[in-house]
Amino acid sequence: MTIASTPPRRRRLHEASLSEGPMMLFRSIRGFSSSRSLVWLACVPLALFGLGVFNLSAHAAELPELTPAFLANNLFLLISAILVIFMNAGFAMVEAGLCRQKNAVNILFKNLLVFAVAVSAYWFIGYKLMYNADWVIPGWLKFGGLFFDPAVTPEMVTDGSLVPSIDFLFQAAFAGTAATIVSGLVAERIKLTTFVIFSIFLVGIIYPIMGSWQWNFPDDAGLGGGWLNNLGFIDFAGSTVVHSMGAWAGLIGAIILGPRIGKFIDGKPQAIPGHNMAIATLGCLILWIGWYGFNPGSWLSMGAEVPFIAVTTTLGAAGGGIAATLASQLPGFGPDKRPGKPDITMTINGILAGLVSVTAGCDGVSMTSAWVMGFIGGVIVVFSVAIIDNLKIDDPVGAFSVHGTCGIWGTLAVGLFNIDKGLFTGHGFSQLGIQFVGALSYAVVTIVASLILWSIIGAFFGGIRVDAEEETVGLDIGEHGMEAYPDFAAAAK
Amino acid sequence: MTIASTPPRRRRLHEASLSEGPMMLFRSIRGFSSSRSLVWLACVPLALFGLGVFNLSAHAAELPELTPAFLANNLFLLISAILVIFMNAGFAMVEAGLCRQKNAVNILFKNLLVFAVAVSAYWFIGYKLMYNADWVIPGWLKFGGLFFDPAVTPEMVTDGSLVPSIDFLFQAAFAGTAATIVSGLVAERIKLTTFVIFSIFLVGIIYPIMGSWQWNFPDDAGLGGGWLNNLGFIDFAGSTVVHSMGAWAGLIGAIILGPRIGKFIDGKPQAIPGHNMAIATLGCLILWIGWYGFNPGSWLSMGAEVPFIAVTTTLGAAGGGIAATLASQLPGFGPDKRPGKPDITMTINGILAGLVSVTAGCDGVSMTSAWVMGFIGGVIVVFSVAIIDNLKIDDPVGAFSVHGTCGIWGTLAVGLFNIDKGLFTGHGFSQLGIQFVGALSYAVVTIVASLILWSIIGAFFGGIRVDAEEETVGLDIGEHGMEAYPDFAAAAK
Amino acid sequence: MTIASTPPRRRRLHEASLSEGPMMLFRSIRGFSSSRSLVWLACVPLALFGLGVFNLSAHAAELPELTPAFLANNLFLLISAILVIFMNAGFAMVEAGLCRQKNAVNILFKNLLVFAVAVSAYWFIGYKLMYNADWVIPGWLKFGGLFFDPAVTPEMVTDGSLVPSIDFLFQAAFAGTAATIVSGLVAERIKLTTFVIFSIFLVGIIYPIMGSWQWNFPDDAGLGGGWLNNLGFIDFAGSTVVHSMGAWAGLIGAIILGPRIGKFIDGKPQAIPGHNMAIATLGCLILWIGWYGFNPGSWLSMGAEVPFIAVTTTLGAAGGGIAATLASQLPGFGPDKRPGKPDITMTINGILAGLVSVTAGCDGVSMTSAWVMGFIGGVIVVFSVAIIDNLKIDDPVGAFSVHGTCGIWGTLAVGLFNIDKGLFTGHGFSQLGIQFVGALSYAVVTIVASLILWSIIGAFFGGIRVDAEEETVGLDIGEHGMEAYPDFAAAAK
Repeated sequence: MTIASTPPRRRRLHEASLSEGPMMLFRSIRGFSSSRSLVWLACVPLALFGLGVFNLSAHAAELPELTPAFLANNLFLLISAILVIFMNAGFAMVEAGLCRQKNAVNILFKNLLVFAVAVSAYWFIGYKLMYNADWVIPGWLKFGGLFFDPAVTPEMVTDGSLVPSIDFLFQAAFAGTAATIVSGLVAERIKLTTFVIFSIFLVGIIYPIMGSWQWNFPDDAGLGGGWLNNLGFIDFAGSTVVHSMGAWAGLIGAIILGPRIGKFIDGKPQAIPGHNMAIATLGCLILWIGWYGFNPGSWLSMGAEVPFIAVTTTLGAAGGGIAATLASQLPGFGPDKRPGKPDITMTINGILAGLVSVTAGCDGVSMTSAWVMGFIGGVIVVFSVAIIDNLKIDDPVGAFSVHGTCGIWGTLAVGLFNIDKGLFTGHGFSQLGIQFVGALSYAVVTIVASLILWSIIGAFFGGIRVDAEEETVGLDIGEHGMEAYPDFAAAAK
Repeated sequence: MTIASTPPRRRRLHEASLSEGPMMLFRSIRGFSSSRSLVWLACVPLALFGLGVFNLSAHAAELPELTPAFLANNLFLLISAILVIFMNAGFAMVEAGLCRQKNAVNILFKNLLVFAVAVSAYWFIGYKLMYNADWVIPGWLKFGGLFFDPAVTPEMVTDGSLVPSIDFLFQAAFAGTAATIVSGLVAERIKLTTFVIFSIFLVGIIYPIMGSWQWNFPDDAGLGGGWLNNLGFIDFAGSTVVHSMGAWAGLIGAIILGPRIGKFIDGKPQAIPGHNMAIATLGCLILWIGWYGFNPGSWLSMGAEVPFIAVTTTLGAAGGGIAATLASQLPGFGPDKRPGKPDITMTINGILAGLVSVTAGCDGVSMTSAWVMGFIGGVIVVFSVAIIDNLKIDDPVGAFSVHGTCGIWGTLAVGLFNIDKGLFTGHGFSQLGIQFVGALSYAVVTIVASLILWSIIGAFFGGIRVDAEEETVGLDIGEHGMEAYPDFAAAAK
Repeated sequence: MTIASTPPRRRRLHEASLSEGPMMLFRSIRGFSSSRSLVWLACVPLALFGLGVFNLSAHAAELPELTPAFLANNLFLLISAILVIFMNAGFAMVEAGLCRQKNAVNILFKNLLVFAVAVSAYWFIGYKLMYNADWVIPGWLKFGGLFFDPAVTPEMVTDGSLVPSIDFLFQAAFAGTAATIVSGLVAERIKLTTFVIFSIFLVGIIYPIMGSWQWNFPDDAGLGGGWLNNLGFIDFAGSTVVHSMGAWAGLIGAIILGPRIGKFIDGKPQAIPGHNMAIATLGCLILWIGWYGFNPGSWLSMGAEVPFIAVTTTLGAAGGGIAATLASQLPGFGPDKRPGKPDITMTINGILAGLVSVTAGCDGVSMTSAWVMGFIGGVIVVFSVAIIDNLKIDDPVGAFSVHGTCGIWGTLAVGLFNIDKGLFTGHGFSQLGIQFVGALSYAVVTIVASLILWSIIGAFFGGIRVDAEEETVGLDIGEHGMEAYPDFAAAAK
């Protein structure tokens, strides 16, 4: 608008004195703004104008006086959604901090863009695959068209229901989490474009379809639920549906990519230390905070159970952090393999592991169980990292161990600790079996879907991995032409 | 208090062994604490004691049982205010990250202090210029004395109104934002004191008076509104009132200051990369979160519309981030001017641009419109940065492009996309015209007021720019006598 | 679980090719997982299973319809608890930023682990020492057994009370704060293990017992309160109960430890600059945000007073930041002892000092008083830092000056500025006297208890200080075998 009309005139004043560098820039602006850019700018609104989507109603017509439950529930979920969205900052800091300086811009960039892309894809199609009113294939597939229309009805107010907007925002934030987990597993060697395209399909198609299997509940007549939910599978806030799902998708990516150059020398795994423990620690604490949206928010209304869930979440994190700190001091673990030196990256991963470990069951276990579940998760994550290393899979930040291994553990732990159905609370093996089926189904389907998706993308882009030279120099220069900390680098030269 | 009485006795024990360095320190403490400091310490409370302000009532006398609306609305706005205040952390990280290491302390310092100063000035006078009960000059000027008295009445409880305290805090956080935007434009070369003084007058006087023109609504009889509001101007959460206003004030500062040394060589703009992409990215994500206070909070009560506004805000950010990422890969843009390399600083600015672009209209456009508005904002910001460069104005972090250019765009976009009044929704040009008048008025008045204010301050302080030597060494050493990362610097030597 | 069964099989495939380094790791895993680890993993759940704690009821049986007050109060306190927990990130960033790079991992690690440990200790025993129903020694000691059982009763719903879970979480976050303050005082030279053990006893035993003296209120008959509360001591949100308490405990640690190598040369205090002003600034702003949970949350329900408390908290921070900025520019202060150069570390500490200074009285003073209390706190903190230096006590981040000196000041300030009882509001000296008694009691008891606790721990571990070689190299290598920023360090070599 203003761009097209005003500036060219002003710029003409300087034209005479402009030499080569700025001229290139100038020409590109002028050339671009006068032809292609205007077309482009105009195209998007015009296309959508044609679709009539600028007129989609934003407001409800007439609402009765807002009820206390309506006010509290919607405010509560708004806060929860904000906290889950804040997790993007946490993931960005943890992942960037645990990787090398030469790839920091690339990792930060992925984390910035992936939520923008994820929320767009989930808004364009994903939400209507996951939560649309009716099944296309009962229990297995929903689809309600594109774009999501957020009408608020008077019944929602009287019932204290969530308005569609806030349900969408909360679910979109969850969807974004799955893509972010992938990011950690494929870090430091993936082509940017292939990652972004994978994320779009993961968040827009795969995650919503699979999510609909569990997070659509049967009605009073026992009809209409997703098949996993109908089976009795319990995954309160997504140890399987979000965390292990994202982890499996990323693991397949990591296997296809192969390890980073220098990760395995003569078959021995090498430590490649992360470049910034300050931001990694900050990221872990932000994620801890964000989990207060993730878990309590999954209750989907403000009730007496919500603070309880916040406490089990806290105790899971605490147990996980303590356990991983202890386990990382065992002989053969830790940064220099000497006993008694706690590894901060393991404490970070232990806290996250504890959080993942209670995510599936945090609403239905005792506080003590939550602490124990987190504690076991914290031990598991340390061993899992070592095992993944020994399997010659390169997971730069331990994302599979945190979200995959502990996602599975958290899912199974429901069968052990759930107050009403757990083995340890005297209710036999049946729930544990169902949990196993759920975790396994998700693993199998995600592995197959990811394998197909990564392969197709790889075929289009000549592989998903950057070339060896770019990887050696760093993806910051290779993919972005810039450095994360140019002044530090310059001073060091 | 304790300082004056106890420590001198203790310190005497060490006096004999104290040699020159600490003696200086010691004398300064003793000298200071025994004479000037005590006077100073005593003066402030005594003066205010004389004014009787320590007795200002803090609590309402007798309130009825708190109504659901009262509880929800005040809690909601408290949360919103906290989120907007959190934006200070976001601005500090973005601005510091996008500037050079040698000026990092100075930028961090400005961002820390400016909110302390802004909230003090707004509390001392600004709030009563902006929201006092009656007009001195109807539609144009309010003034209700100094200090703000937060009495809560029973009517507020029954009506579900906001208590004055929370309205003040929310508005103070907005006022602080305007000053923070200025900070980015004048970074890396302004004298600290002149910036602080400018901020005090901007937040205490200019912003509140101009804000009263728009954010005072007419009563049922159509009387009492600000003149812009009476005109029908729409700026829901401040694309113009806050963002473009701060940007114009800063732009005048940037023009008066002139470009940083080395920004233009032989008339060609040079890239001066920011020193820390990790904190810049973090800052962007914090700002994204903070905007959930800025936009939804501007509804000023918890209602069914609030989550909708949170979604349009999210989609605006997503559209902006995606668009700027694409645009920064065009030939002639991006860090090394080669196509296909997305510039993380442009993704950061694109997300912020998307947010600014929907701020004016986020309550009254469709979700699709919000995404499109953000998307166009993300394209605009990339071009705007290039244009500002070509105009030989040095805006180190792209603040004018984000808050000014996109603030104007967001304001005009209301006239295009608003469901009830927009051109693209079939309602003709009239609202677009009003939006243009509003944006223009703000530009003109802010430019004039800033020009006057910067000139007066410059006259008092012998100019507002640090000398060339200080700028070359860095403002951290020059203004603060310290470095941001002394251990990195020492290691590099 | 999964660890024990699956991976050994997979790993066998690689065994032949594994050479020495990974073999060590491999053997340790196999050895560990097959024997000790399984026992260990099994022990914890089995022990707790034996205690029957996995069956502790998580949910209330039947609750009536949730009342508006119940919804609002519990949601409000949940948000407050989350904000206070977020303060851990703030403390971590401030403390790490203000210390040297070579100890950054250690400081980050302490801050990560200490909240995990604190919340575990407070859940295991502390909460039931502080808030259990009945006194063992009236006014002085409570104890209600181990583990905390969070039953929700129908009366809580009808009365709008807090559910026990959220009260626990909020109080646990407070308890963690006390330990975190200690961390700053003993930084850069304490053995990690001794700090963790001290924290467990501080948070699990000392803090809760002392806290019960003040934060148990008398019933309507005037019976049942803690002795300090019965006395009329006012400490609304913990200037004394949390801040000065933690500061005294840390000060004793700092004195026992002695100063860091190089802090005093020939008796002169030396400046040891912090390594990262960006994260220190971020930490300060996060703490500012967190304080909106700390102070307003201490009202323990959502009421008309809550936003007022948020405003007094804000003004305290603003006054403190401004005052410390001014005071740090006096001759003899500031980074290079030259006047007119504001020290960002003092602005950071001034903001925190302002916050601590209003914490005790923020609910009962006028807004002006709050600003003045913060302002005076900001002056005090600058002098206090100089005085602590001259006393040859090494407090690396100024934690005693912020939390101790200003904690005392804030406590006394209640006696001066409280609207109903303050000297400056015309109510005589009696409240001031009571405030003095409270601050003094806390000082004496904490000093004695800490002295005993540090001594016992020191006796067990052969002192609480790392050896001189480790201190010189840095605790990151010494305690953790890793560096915070290995790539920066490598580039600098």
